[in-house]
Amino acid sequence: MKREAVLLAAAQVFNERGYHLTTLDAIAEKLNVTKPTVYYYLSNKEAILCECFRTGCGVLVDAADEIEESELTGIDKLAAFMRKYAEAMTTDFVMNVVRLDLYGLEPEMQDEIGELKSAVDRRFRTYIEEGIANGTIAECDPKMTAFAIAGALNWIGRWYQPDGPLQPTEIADLIVERLVEGLRSQ
Amino acid sequence: MKREAVLLAAAQVFNERGYHLTTLDAIAEKLNVTKPTVYYYLSNKEAILCECFRTGCGVLVDAADEIEESELTGIDKLAAFMRKYAEAMTTDFVMNVVRLDLYGLEPEMQDEIGELKSAVDRRFRTYIEEGIANGTIAECDPKMTAFAIAGALNWIGRWYQPDGPLQPTEIADLIVERLVEGLRSQ
Repeated sequence: MKREAVLLAAAQVFNERGYHLTTLDAIAEKLNVTKPTVYYYLSNKEAILCECFRTGCGVLVDAADEIEESELTGIDKLAAFMRKYAEAMTTDFVMNVVRLDLYGLEPEMQDEIGELKSAVDRRFRTYIEEGIANGTIAECDPKMTAFAIAGALNWIGRWYQPDGPLQPTEIADLIVERLVEGLRSQ
Repeated sequence: MKREAVLLAAAQVFNERGYHLTTLDAIAEKLNVTKPTVYYYLSNKEAILCECFRTGCGVLVDAADEIEESELTGIDKLAAFMRKYAEAMTTDFVMNVVRLDLYGLEPEMQDEIGELKSAVDRRFRTYIEEGIANGTIAECDPKMTAFAIAGALNWIGRWYQPDGPLQPTEIADLIVERLVEGLRSQ
């Protein structure tokens, strides 16, 4: 049993039953293990939820860090990040995390998770601002543009079907192309 | 007490507590009325949830019907629908409906609600196909483009804050401009 398997099962059960109705027993049952096995990784539901977001957002931040180390600049950097983000959205784990809702959580947890999500959103905004500054991206409102991009990409996690006609890379290419075309400075 | 008030309260409580934990009592409590008052409008939780989607999607379909009667064509029709859709997304009711999740519902209900949502999505796809056909929209994959647009617009319901710096019409204009720019045939 790996930590990743516990987090994936937890994210799935949170979505299936709703976070508030989920018990550690239900997560253990999903994994066909006993509750102590789940406890071995994380001792309570709150910690598991936070860890789901930490790991899910971590995947996206890692992708951004990798792009930072590349030679890409301006709009190409944004497009590369969008592509990685779109592909992540078709993976079981990230798809389940992006569907999780934060309603009814303790304010401290909402803040903690909100901060993790903001760190990802800030990357979009930074790339857009950089692109405008170096002339590869047309003048636009970076905040609204970042929201539009994040929405279009996060939505993939809502409609993606693994047995659909397009591969994740094809979906990523088509969606990213659509979004990037309107940003190119003419 | 109006029917609309019951549906709005219901959508809010479904989001706050999760659908499966919501009782008619909780909806009545939110409205400061007795349960029979809620019963007067709709007799069970399933019916209320379906009615929330019927009314919410109805707002969007009505907006599309209105545009159908206008003189607009091609990309202008798409942009007009997107603008109406974006503005609807900042209203209390539609915002709460778009946040509702369908996990764990009976298959019949999922199908019924899925059909209501598809009717809205089809409008996007139709406008895109029309625009490609009449040369106002660049060649693109209508399905993926419709998903990208719907995602960007639905996401507004997740981040919109009524006390934020921009008015709903300003948000709609900025987001729609971003999305439409990339679709214009050059």
